[in-house]
Amino acid sequence: MNMVEIIEKKKLGKTLSQDEITYFVQGAADGSIPDYQLAALLMAIRLNGMNREETAQLTLAMTNSGDVCDLSSLNGIPVDKHSTGGVGDTTTLVLAPLVAACGVPVAKMSGRGLGHTGGTLDKMESISGLSVSMSEEAFLQQVKEIGVAVIGQSKNLAPADKTLYALRDVTSTVDSLPLIASSIVSKKLASGAQGIVLDVKTGAGALMHTLDASIELAQVMVRIGCDAGRKMVALVTDMGEPLGSHVGNALEVKEAIDVLSRRVKGPLLTVSLELGARLLMLGEAAETVEQAKEMLTEALESGRGLETLRKMIAAQGGDPSCCDDVTRLPQAKVIQDVLSASSGYIQHMDTIGLGNTAQAMGAGRRTKEDVIDPSVGFVLHKRIGDPVAEGEPLATLYAKDEQSAAIAAKAITEQIHVDARPVPACKLIHAFVTEETIERF
Amino acid sequence: MNMVEIIEKKKLGKTLSQDEITYFVQGAADGSIPDYQLAALLMAIRLNGMNREETAQLTLAMTNSGDVCDLSSLNGIPVDKHSTGGVGDTTTLVLAPLVAACGVPVAKMSGRGLGHTGGTLDKMESISGLSVSMSEEAFLQQVKEIGVAVIGQSKNLAPADKTLYALRDVTSTVDSLPLIASSIVSKKLASGAQGIVLDVKTGAGALMHTLDASIELAQVMVRIGCDAGRKMVALVTDMGEPLGSHVGNALEVKEAIDVLSRRVKGPLLTVSLELGARLLMLGEAAETVEQAKEMLTEALESGRGLETLRKMIAAQGGDPSCCDDVTRLPQAKVIQDVLSASSGYIQHMDTIGLGNTAQAMGAGRRTKEDVIDPSVGFVLHKRIGDPVAEGEPLATLYAKDEQSAAIAAKAITEQIHVDARPVPACKLIHAFVTEETIERF
Repeated sequence: MNMVEIIEKKKLGKTLSQDEITYFVQGAADGSIPDYQLAALLMAIRLNGMNREETAQLTLAMTNSGDVCDLSSLNGIPVDKHSTGGVGDTTTLVLAPLVAACGVPVAKMSGRGLGHTGGTLDKMESISGLSVSMSEEAFLQQVKEIGVAVIGQSKNLAPADKTLYALRDVTSTVDSLPLIASSIVSKKLASGAQGIVLDVKTGAGALMHTLDASIELAQVMVRIGCDAGRKMVALVTDMGEPLGSHVGNALEVKEAIDVLSRRVKGPLLTVSLELGARLLMLGEAAETVEQAKEMLTEALESGRGLETLRKMIAAQGGDPSCCDDVTRLPQAKVIQDVLSASSGYIQHMDTIGLGNTAQAMGAGRRTKEDVIDPSVGFVLHKRIGDPVAEGEPLATLYAKDEQSAAIAAKAITEQIHVDARPVPACKLIHAFVTEETIERF
Repeated sequence: MNMVEIIEKKKLGKTLSQDEITYFVQGAADGSIPDYQLAALLMAIRLNGMNREETAQLTLAMTNSGDVCDLSSLNGIPVDKHSTGGVGDTTTLVLAPLVAACGVPVAKMSGRGLGHTGGTLDKMESISGLSVSMSEEAFLQQVKEIGVAVIGQSKNLAPADKTLYALRDVTSTVDSLPLIASSIVSKKLASGAQGIVLDVKTGAGALMHTLDASIELAQVMVRIGCDAGRKMVALVTDMGEPLGSHVGNALEVKEAIDVLSRRVKGPLLTVSLELGARLLMLGEAAETVEQAKEMLTEALESGRGLETLRKMIAAQGGDPSCCDDVTRLPQAKVIQDVLSASSGYIQHMDTIGLGNTAQAMGAGRRTKEDVIDPSVGFVLHKRIGDPVAEGEPLATLYAKDEQSAAIAAKAITEQIHVDARPVPACKLIHAFVTEETIERF
C-alpha cells in the first residue's frame, strides 16, 4: 500500500477501497504517515467527496483505531445521545435520568466545551466532588446499578480522529460532510451504545447554518451508524437561539434540576422529551413517540427522574444536595441585569456571539490551559419573538467581577437584536431523520 | 496574513492576491509555514487551479525567494534555452556554441538528470577535468570572453521551489499546470537571461504526453515569462522517441561533437538549429528564422561552432582534445549489439523505458547518492518508421559489464516495437508558441 497512490486516487475523484481507507487511518493513528500526506488527502476528500460506503468505512476504521467500549454485559439495549454542539443546550442532564428511570440503560460518554459551545463534562464538574473519570468496569457497574452514567471519553478513543481533527483545523478542511460525520460518529460507535440518537443542531449557532445542510449531515451520520449495525436516528433541532435560558456551567445544571423538579417547563424540557422519546424507542421500551413521551412525563412528574439524577451524582462522588437546594451549586460574585435599550420584539440572536460571551466570562476555555469558572454565565429572559419594553431585563449576568460583567453586558446588548417589527417564535424541532426517511416539521 | 485563510480561499476556488501568494512562498522558503499547510494548499491549487495572474505572481515570488543572477553587465541580450526533459536530448551542447559563435551571449544554468531524462551537467562532467561550478563573477567573465558558459544552478536558486517540489512529489500534486509552469520558469527567471526559448517536449517520453497538453503548458510558461518582462517563446518538439541516436553521458557529448564536426546530420541538428534560430532572434542578431538558420549553418560549416565549444570546455577546466578525438571521452568496457528479432518497421518506442534502461546501466541516478558512470548507455540505429531486417542491429550497448549489457539488451528489445505494418516517421517540431500565437506544424 502506497500513500501517494491513495492521495492520487482521491485527487482524481475515484473511490477508495476499504483497505486503502484502513491503511491511512491506521497510519494517522500510529503516526507512520506524515502530516503533509494526510493534509493533502484531507483536501482531496474535502474537494472530491466520499460516497456512503467510503464514509462508513472511514468511520469504522477510525472507531477501530483505538479502544472500543464493550457494553454487552448490560441488560437491555444501552442508548446514548449526541449533540453536534449548542449554547444553553443541557438536554443530557434532563433526559439521561428520565430515560434511565424508564428502564433503558444510558451509558454515555460526553465531551468538554469547544469554541462557543458548552460541554456536559464541564457542567457536571460544577457539582462539588463529582468525577467524570472512571474505569470501564466501574462505568458498567454504575449503569447496572442505577441505570445511568455520564463520563469522559477514554484517552485512546478513536486516536486517528484526534490526529485528523487537529490537522483539519489548521488546513481548512473542517467543512467536509464525510469528515465531519465520520469524526462525530466514530467516537459514538467506540463508546459502545447500541441505540444512538443524534441531536443535529441547525441555525446561526450550529455547525450547519441551513436546515438543508443540517438534514444532509444528519442523514449521512445516521446511515453510517446503520451501516455499522447500530440503531441510529437523528432529530434536527433549533440553534438559532440558545435552547435553555441558562448559559454557563452551574447555571445549566441548575436549569436541568429546575426542569426535573417540575419548577420550569419550556424549550429545554420539550426538546429533552423529544430526544428522550427516541431513545426509549431505540431501547425498545416504547413503540410510539406518544407512548414514550407519556412514560418520560410520568418519570418526571413522579420525581423518579430527579431521584435518578441524585443517585448518579452520588455514585460519581458528587454532592447530591444540589438537587434539593440549587444554591449549593457555585454562586457568582456579581449578579447584574442587562436592560433593553429599546422597546419592540426580539428579532434574532447572535448565538455564537452569546456562546463566546459566556466563554469570555470564564465559562469556557480559549486555550487548553484555561481553567473554567463554574459559577459564571448568564440567564436570558427573552426568546426570539418575545415583546420587550425599554428598560426591561434582557438577561441577568453571573460574573466573577464588575469588569467582566460590564464587558459581557455590552456584548449581550449587541448580540440580542430588538426591533419594532413582530416576528414569530422559532420552531424547536425541524426534522426527524432515519436511514431512509426525512420527516420535516 | 493567515495561512488557514489562504488555504480556505483557494479551497473555495477564489483568486489569491499577490500578498497572499508572496506570503506562502516566502513561508515555504524560510520554513515558517508547516509542510501540512503547504500540502493542503498544493492540493487545493491542483484541484481548483490558478489563473494567469496568480501563476505569474507565484513564479515571481519563487524567483525572488532566493538569489537572482544579474547579467546586466554583459554586452548584448543574454539568452538561455530550457528543455522540459527528454532522452538523447543534447541540443544544449550543439546550439550553445553555435549561438555564441553568432555573437549572442549564452549564459546558461543547467540541471542534472531526473528520472528517465538526462541532464546537461552530467553530460559535461564526462569530459575530463571539466567543472560546472563557478562563482557568478567567473561565470560573467567567461561569457564576456568567449560568449558562452554552461554551469550548475546556485544552491540558493528559488529555494521556495525546492520545498514545494519535494512536497508535490509525495502528495500527488505534481500534475498541476500552474505548479509545473511556475517551478520551471521561476528557476529560468532567477538565472537572469533576458531571452529564453523553451523546448517543451511532447509525446510518450515527455512530461506531457499529448500535443494539446504540451502546447497548453508551453503557452502558460511563455505568458509567465512575458508577464515578468522577459522575451520568451517556446517550441514544442517531439519526444515520442529519443531525439539523438546516442543515449548516455559521454555518448551524447560524442554525438554533439560529431554534429559540430559536420560528421553527422539528423534530428539532433535539425532541432538544435530551430531552437538556436529562435535564440538568435530573441538576441536581436537575426530578423527571420531563415536568416538565423543561415547564420547558424555558417557558424557550423566554418568550424566556429566547434571552436567555441573547445574554448568553453577549456575555460571550464576540461580537456578540449575530445573535440578533435572523441575516443578521449570515457569508453565503456563492454560493447555489444542488440539485434532485431523480426523484420518489419519500427512502430513505436517506449521512450521512458529507454531512458530508464540507460539509468539502470549507470547513466543516471536512482537515488541522490548514486554515482554516474559517464561511459555507459546505448546508440540507436533506427528511428520510428525505419525498416529493419531480422538480425539487424537495433542498437549498440555501451555497458560496464556483461550482466548489465544482458539486462539492457532484453529491455531494449521490449522497448522498441517492430511490426510488419509501415508507419511514417515522426514529425520533429510540432508547434511554435508565443504569448499570443500558436503555430502548429
